[in-house]
Amino acid sequence: MENIKLEEALSFPKDKIMQLNVCIFGVSGYTGANLLYYLLKHPNVNVVGVFGDSSSGRSLRELFPHYHNVPDINISNYKSFNFDNVNLIFSCLPHGSFQKSIISNINTSIPIIDLSGDFRLKDFEEYRNFYGEEHIAQIYSKSFVYGLSEIYRDEIKKSKYIANPGCYPTSILLPLIPLLKKGLISNQHLVIDAKSGISGAGKKLEKQYLFSEVNENFSSYGIKKHKHYAEINQELLKFGKNSFTFIPHLVPATQGLQSTIYLDKQNELSIYKKTLQDFFKKDSFVKIYKNTLPSFSDVVRTNNIAINIFEDYSKKKIIIVSCIDNLIKGAAGQAIQNMNIMFGFTESESLI
Amino acid sequence: MENIKLEEALSFPKDKIMQLNVCIFGVSGYTGANLLYYLLKHPNVNVVGVFGDSSSGRSLRELFPHYHNVPDINISNYKSFNFDNVNLIFSCLPHGSFQKSIISNINTSIPIIDLSGDFRLKDFEEYRNFYGEEHIAQIYSKSFVYGLSEIYRDEIKKSKYIANPGCYPTSILLPLIPLLKKGLISNQHLVIDAKSGISGAGKKLEKQYLFSEVNENFSSYGIKKHKHYAEINQELLKFGKNSFTFIPHLVPATQGLQSTIYLDKQNELSIYKKTLQDFFKKDSFVKIYKNTLPSFSDVVRTNNIAINIFEDYSKKKIIIVSCIDNLIKGAAGQAIQNMNIMFGFTESESLI
Amino acid sequence: MENIKLEEALSFPKDKIMQLNVCIFGVSGYTGANLLYYLLKHPNVNVVGVFGDSSSGRSLRELFPHYHNVPDINISNYKSFNFDNVNLIFSCLPHGSFQKSIISNINTSIPIIDLSGDFRLKDFEEYRNFYGEEHIAQIYSKSFVYGLSEIYRDEIKKSKYIANPGCYPTSILLPLIPLLKKGLISNQHLVIDAKSGISGAGKKLEKQYLFSEVNENFSSYGIKKHKHYAEINQELLKFGKNSFTFIPHLVPATQGLQSTIYLDKQNELSIYKKTLQDFFKKDSFVKIYKNTLPSFSDVVRTNNIAINIFEDYSKKKIIIVSCIDNLIKGAAGQAIQNMNIMFGFTESESLI
Amino acid sequence: MENIKLEEALSFPKDKIMQLNVCIFGVSGYTGANLLYYLLKHPNVNVVGVFGDSSSGRSLRELFPHYHNVPDINISNYKSFNFDNVNLIFSCLPHGSFQKSIISNINTSIPIIDLSGDFRLKDFEEYRNFYGEEHIAQIYSKSFVYGLSEIYRDEIKKSKYIANPGCYPTSILLPLIPLLKKGLISNQHLVIDAKSGISGAGKKLEKQYLFSEVNENFSSYGIKKHKHYAEINQELLKFGKNSFTFIPHLVPATQGLQSTIYLDKQNELSIYKKTLQDFFKKDSFVKIYKNTLPSFSDVVRTNNIAINIFEDYSKKKIIIVSCIDNLIKGAAGQAIQNMNIMFGFTESESLI
Repeated sequence: MENIKLEEALSFPKDKIMQLNVCIFGVSGYTGANLLYYLLKHPNVNVVGVFGDSSSGRSLRELFPHYHNVPDINISNYKSFNFDNVNLIFSCLPHGSFQKSIISNINTSIPIIDLSGDFRLKDFEEYRNFYGEEHIAQIYSKSFVYGLSEIYRDEIKKSKYIANPGCYPTSILLPLIPLLKKGLISNQHLVIDAKSGISGAGKKLEKQYLFSEVNENFSSYGIKKHKHYAEINQELLKFGKNSFTFIPHLVPATQGLQSTIYLDKQNELSIYKKTLQDFFKKDSFVKIYKNTLPSFSDVVRTNNIAINIFEDYSKKKIIIVSCIDNLIKGAAGQAIQNMNIMFGFTESESLI
Repeated sequence: MENIKLEEALSFPKDKIMQLNVCIFGVSGYTGANLLYYLLKHPNVNVVGVFGDSSSGRSLRELFPHYHNVPDINISNYKSFNFDNVNLIFSCLPHGSFQKSIISNINTSIPIIDLSGDFRLKDFEEYRNFYGEEHIAQIYSKSFVYGLSEIYRDEIKKSKYIANPGCYPTSILLPLIPLLKKGLISNQHLVIDAKSGISGAGKKLEKQYLFSEVNENFSSYGIKKHKHYAEINQELLKFGKNSFTFIPHLVPATQGLQSTIYLDKQNELSIYKKTLQDFFKKDSFVKIYKNTLPSFSDVVRTNNIAINIFEDYSKKKIIIVSCIDNLIKGAAGQAIQNMNIMFGFTESESLI
Repeated sequence: MENIKLEEALSFPKDKIMQLNVCIFGVSGYTGANLLYYLLKHPNVNVVGVFGDSSSGRSLRELFPHYHNVPDINISNYKSFNFDNVNLIFSCLPHGSFQKSIISNINTSIPIIDLSGDFRLKDFEEYRNFYGEEHIAQIYSKSFVYGLSEIYRDEIKKSKYIANPGCYPTSILLPLIPLLKKGLISNQHLVIDAKSGISGAGKKLEKQYLFSEVNENFSSYGIKKHKHYAEINQELLKFGKNSFTFIPHLVPATQGLQSTIYLDKQNELSIYKKTLQDFFKKDSFVKIYKNTLPSFSDVVRTNNIAINIFEDYSKKKIIIVSCIDNLIKGAAGQAIQNMNIMFGFTESESLI
Repeated sequence: MENIKLEEALSFPKDKIMQLNVCIFGVSGYTGANLLYYLLKHPNVNVVGVFGDSSSGRSLRELFPHYHNVPDINISNYKSFNFDNVNLIFSCLPHGSFQKSIISNINTSIPIIDLSGDFRLKDFEEYRNFYGEEHIAQIYSKSFVYGLSEIYRDEIKKSKYIANPGCYPTSILLPLIPLLKKGLISNQHLVIDAKSGISGAGKKLEKQYLFSEVNENFSSYGIKKHKHYAEINQELLKFGKNSFTFIPHLVPATQGLQSTIYLDKQNELSIYKKTLQDFFKKDSFVKIYKNTLPSFSDVVRTNNIAINIFEDYSKKKIIIVSCIDNLIKGAAGQAIQNMNIMFGFTESESLI
């Protein structure tokens, strides 16, 4: 199977403004709910189908009584849905579901933006190692472009399938890739201490995610192995880095994510900063701060990534502080941004 | 002024169980309130004087209506207090107050446990650099033992003056000192990413500590310079380390502190772990975990430090996770522990 | 001074779509920040002036680095500002400032939406009693329409001055006024137990609003007297009610407000419910829930009010649960809604 | 079966100080964990058996690595446990388990303190109505004394079986019973608006208790019917009250509970206050505040109940604010208090 270009797949010319008919798999999770929120605001989108196991049969209006302009449709089973007029599919399902049981059952000529980890890794050994199961939809995998909007905008524009990046990787790769391209990161001692709000865990019913467990708590997790390690590794390797340490932590907050990144200082701090400022000077969602420190509250409920860069008291390390909203720039927002790029809408449409 | 031994200073022989008359400077802050709580439970302590500017004149019972066994005394001005029968002074004042205006006005034959940073640093240049003002009580400084209980127990036992350690240093030095002693830490690339609850800021009336600012937020601070850097540096230097990076963060939780510490791997993980287990095998407040990850909720409102040690996926770094309650083991609890050590009480008395 | 009609005041015909030049007093508080956020999104608004004491001189872009499309202006002193081309003034200042020192210094031919309590009460005795100071701008007071959008839409449309309602009153009056009009509320035993997030206190630097005080806490306040009592009383009296009990509480959350309202049951529950459904059937921001219970999370960061109505187990009381976001429908959002009504824009413009 | 007196049941004379061998059913829940914490501190208690389904087989030390003095025992199945030397059984199991499947399988000559709702209601119709299932251990029910310590101290002293009260009832009955006894509460319009931290829901794995659902949220629940309604009703009826409204709410906090109680004013406020002060003057856990308002933070992690009483602005209602920790005075703490009363220990032993 060849890489499928978006224009070949579409039944309409991409350069005319048009109305997209959109479906969402997994609308009832946190990411799905955020995605729906943005899609309902988007002037070029009609939400025509919503699929979800746990809430099947329920009215979308009943599930989202506080949203405006909700179409009068029910959560349904995609197997009995008519996809004929659908222009775009979003999947917000948990890892594994889409590759294992859905993609082979749907009309794959329809463009897809998948927000899970199913199609991010190109190395199926790594997939098995980190996701703990076989990838059975490898045939589609190479057609998926890794949807890190600011880095792969040109490929996204032309692609039909997007593997929307993970939250940690988004916060880490955006500042690191420009620095790697300039040779400003040594091959050793890259330490990434990352902290995320709890919504990244979705609605999993596990004791550790109960309010009384999370509240007033703070904890490390995934110390020995975390799915996002493989994704960060794949992308850094494209630009030459080959060893790093990544330890994620859970913050008692719903949304927000910060990566504190420690680099060996190879050059003047100002060179690092200017590299980021230059690289992102046209990217309205990337905020390279001048003096202040970014924090969760600067980015939650926005599609922004806020970054600043410092040297520590020892003058031996460069410290990058990079913040996003894990559910927005780290999931639903970047997915909308990618849709806007793919279909030629204003990149920030409905995101500001 | 010579180092003053506790026994010389005391008017009673230390080996007989006795009742201490105790005073507290700064009782109305978070640390003071916790200290008072433990002192009121302690069978060998009578709280006889409490001093505080903002609450002067108010009844202690009125300020702490929910405490039990509160003596019927008022917050007063220490200048008009009769210290004749006082056996021990605690100071929970903000940094600077005790060294600048108090110690020279009180009877310095009374033992003191100071919970501020006033007498931790022995290098007055460092003090000026990190605390931003002159130290004017240098004459007393060398008599203060750095009260890291498990490390300096013998000195504490014999000393009359204790400089109670800071919260971050306590969480960092306890796991690092045994490893340094065994030569398990290389001279480079020690990265400490520390996270604390907000109560460490006390009751400072600054916008950044308002609920609406802190809640659902997470942020770095003190990136370029933090008072505790100097304290950690002083203590690590005693055991040979001379470069490290320390970045503190604020967690939206009241109490709790975690340091995630990244070391270059110099040896097998098991050697690191066994070193800590052996070193602390008789220390009931030090919990070296076997499998689970420590987190805030394991230590808050206890005098414990909970530690575990791992290697990361890259196998190049050793990761130490070290948790304490910043107000207890990081302040009031360790002060009580030091009092117990000094006066020959059971070390854990009233702390469990 | 006569009531000034909006059309007389405006230099443009209200029925043509146009671009408003807008100023904000008090942009740096929580309400001001939310108001700015909506105004920056609004296609018919240019923010041309922003005033604030504490942040005077600072660049608006620097203060809001995470906002998009921030005009390149500085926070300034209104006294040196040229109001010639200004079409609308918002004031988000703390209670008292606008009536005492500003309104008499500005060109009062410009329409004003005041979000403080300065012009809500028409009885100056009540004002003195509840606000603790004299009202010195009484001459303007009668020109201010109480901006409860869904109730006073027609008056708002014609008025030049709007006194934007308080957060508690909005949540309470919207469900009660339709029931009062239908005679469904007895003259006694109306109990309102209200709960608000902390942001209602703004950025006041008081110990009680520190994170460590609010977090994990819940408390009543204003039990004997609360400014909003007078406002609720004034409005209920217009429809005949004359005794009620109102006790507010602080919830450890930033945004959100719920009023739990207890009425003597005078009629079937279904009559109450239908009354609300009928009254608000065209109001897109009023969500009368069918089965589910509204809660903070249904309304935060929206301009919605979500209401449901029940009877309790004793069958003697009717319970209304009414939720809003205190900063949005309870402040900045309703102000935008009022602006949209005044100037003939779509009522929900930029609010959804 | 007759009411069983404690002294008949015990194999030792109650008036000699002794060491109790204690078992806990349901040690791994929040209440069980708190109970264990206090029992481990108690000088007259040995914890000899701990039972729990989900954690069966695991070592108690491993489950509570941060506790001190944990006995070296495993969580086991009570069916294979030898109860011969057991002096007291605590049950912290969810409602229903103890009455349905356990009490008939154990040696009922051993004293029991049951923290569930199984034996609180004496009317089995009410039990079926509110608990949704049959009571199949009715034979034991009349031997259970309702363990509201300050009210039923004398009965508790003599009883072998204690039904430990629910959290809401404890906060409500303690202030109301003394007022009812004095005839200060009218027969109508008693409104109780109660607010609890989330830990009351235990570790139930339901979506509504996930951190991301609870955090920054506030909600009513159980509006039409709540188990505690029946319990409050049963106890109030003993003192003559027969109608009230009770609406519970969930606060985004782990521990803490406040009942705001609205009474028709029948007499001077001072009479209400004095009645409570007199009634509880010897009860060290009941704090009748003089001026300040009690709040969660006054009582969490204590066995205190803090109460104050006011009149509202309308002067027609008396407002009682009553706060407890739902897990301590509302569960584990009151259970310990009851044990202390039963066995003649100091009533506050290990609770302060």
